[in-house]
Amino acid sequence: MTNRVLNFAAGPAAIPEAVLKQAQHELLNWRDTGMSILEVGHRTAVFQDYLAEIQAELRQLLTIPTNYHILFMPGGGQGQFFSVPMNLIGRTGQADYLDTGIWSHKAALQAKPYGQVNIVASNATNPFVMPKTTEWQCAKDAAYFYYCPNETISGLMLYDIPQVAVPLIADMSSCILMKPFTVADYGLIFSVSQKMLGTSGISLVIVREELLGEALPITPDIFNYQKQAKESSCLNSPPIYAIYLMELVVKWTLQQGGLVAMEECNQAKAKLLYDYIDNSQFYYNKIDPVYRSLMNITFTTNDEAKDTAFWQTAAKQGLMGLKGHKLLGGLRASCYNTISIGDVKRLIAFMQDFAQ
Amino acid sequence: MTNRVLNFAAGPAAIPEAVLKQAQHELLNWRDTGMSILEVGHRTAVFQDYLAEIQAELRQLLTIPTNYHILFMPGGGQGQFFSVPMNLIGRTGQADYLDTGIWSHKAALQAKPYGQVNIVASNATNPFVMPKTTEWQCAKDAAYFYYCPNETISGLMLYDIPQVAVPLIADMSSCILMKPFTVADYGLIFSVSQKMLGTSGISLVIVREELLGEALPITPDIFNYQKQAKESSCLNSPPIYAIYLMELVVKWTLQQGGLVAMEECNQAKAKLLYDYIDNSQFYYNKIDPVYRSLMNITFTTNDEAKDTAFWQTAAKQGLMGLKGHKLLGGLRASCYNTISIGDVKRLIAFMQDFAQ
Repeated sequence: MTNRVLNFAAGPAAIPEAVLKQAQHELLNWRDTGMSILEVGHRTAVFQDYLAEIQAELRQLLTIPTNYHILFMPGGGQGQFFSVPMNLIGRTGQADYLDTGIWSHKAALQAKPYGQVNIVASNATNPFVMPKTTEWQCAKDAAYFYYCPNETISGLMLYDIPQVAVPLIADMSSCILMKPFTVADYGLIFSVSQKMLGTSGISLVIVREELLGEALPITPDIFNYQKQAKESSCLNSPPIYAIYLMELVVKWTLQQGGLVAMEECNQAKAKLLYDYIDNSQFYYNKIDPVYRSLMNITFTTNDEAKDTAFWQTAAKQGLMGLKGHKLLGGLRASCYNTISIGDVKRLIAFMQDFAQ
Repeated sequence: MTNRVLNFAAGPAAIPEAVLKQAQHELLNWRDTGMSILEVGHRTAVFQDYLAEIQAELRQLLTIPTNYHILFMPGGGQGQFFSVPMNLIGRTGQADYLDTGIWSHKAALQAKPYGQVNIVASNATNPFVMPKTTEWQCAKDAAYFYYCPNETISGLMLYDIPQVAVPLIADMSSCILMKPFTVADYGLIFSVSQKMLGTSGISLVIVREELLGEALPITPDIFNYQKQAKESSCLNSPPIYAIYLMELVVKWTLQQGGLVAMEECNQAKAKLLYDYIDNSQFYYNKIDPVYRSLMNITFTTNDEAKDTAFWQTAAKQGLMGLKGHKLLGGLRASCYNTISIGDVKRLIAFMQDFAQ
């Protein structure tokens, strides 16, 4: 089987071939129901059991404590940009946002209609580092502190967990399955599905029970965490195939050894690629090494025409998704869990050839 | 291949087997991209071309005029319950709602945080008819008139198009591909994807250009029709597989002869089933014949235990989804376009056996 390319896109991103093959195999008849999962009702016993199964697998993979709800919410990542403030800002009417790149910046902008948004710090004048904690200016009475630990577009990552007095909210869309972490450090974590958790359509939301119940009156029912928690994320028809794909990916990740195994592999992949870039004298990564992303590895030849030739030539050889984000330019290799060490070696071999 | 059941569920509903087979065939490599459609980026040229293709097919199938936008919106049907008022109620601050059953009732309730909701009329005291137009009490200055032509749960349908002075908004989730209709009669039409248009995950929204531009300031970007129209429904990652399935179903419907052929078949199916029920002296449909749904055919034995035995026995014989909605009880056969005349005959044969 068949001319599959190597896909380094940042999201929608590559899905393990074993997952796709299972999805293909059972597409017309899922678990002996005589139906496609595409046709199965979300209120049927078989699907409700399946929801319990994926929740159990997620609890195992991410070590999620019992006082956290697991929700499957529509609207992708930007669905959470308004859902977080609608559900959580009401307690005090204001929230802290750490502005470290395009995604956290957008999240802060989209929170503004719902309360007072305080920008704790911004790296806008130097996007290659994270703002120093000594310069953070937190509000006196924020309902929460929001940040994006991995800025997918610039390839910038904050490894230290912010030490703040209020519930910590993290957009982990491009790092949720990167390595083990402690859920209890956070009030709420969310991740889109189309980067590390399958295909587009839902956001995984993990939220501490005690934060629920203070949604603004304008919050639509389907974006009300408490109402969705009560209905097992089935307040209305959920995007069923995105949930199904997430289950297959979560199970695949467990089979590969879980997040400990993922971290080991991710560290090795990133070291290979950053080391090659740093030693190449042809490719450059401008991010302060302390903040370099393990997942989204950005680089450039410092020549726009050469960058363009790079991703175009790569694509012809079946290495896809290497063009940098349109807002930033340059090049980017996103190395989520589907990408193997062998895949990174193949990329480096191409980079060597191209540099000649 | 394989023990496929016959699925009369109201939604998520059956999908044509030819569509599922194509989806299965190309699941690992879509259109020679070397990727699954599940992995394809929504900003790639190949996917943007595909979006143009489905829009063209929808324009052909539904005869959509050029001054109407075609949008693929997240959040399912209830996503539109708040999106419609958020985007459209601002012009006057109030809107008319015709309350004819569970779905239009919910839509009216969920509009309340965003403006004044005027219930034009309600059939709550007699849910087997539509409220008479002579009894409708429209507001003096409504921004729009909202109704649900086919109430999926009760199986009640309003065939006449409301003659009102303001833009008409229709929830066509369970009748959009039932028969030809004139888009220009409406200001906005929406339909969930999991009944007649594939699998769950998006709502198709068809909206007249001139209605855009007055969204309330609290409207989230991804639910702002004007912003989504400007970005070809790709303001953020859309639920790509639900769009793909919709395209396959739309193409299949065109290949079957379009909405003229669908209507002919749907009329024949409904006549067969209602005639059998009316003559059976065992099964009953209480809806005024003038308002009986062509799509969702409800019936009961007038005995709760027998109704339960009916759908349980049917399920054992591979006839699924015949249990009535949990809010209403009884039995229901949803006969969307995937259901053939032969399928309805098979159902009637079972009904005859069971009645013995």
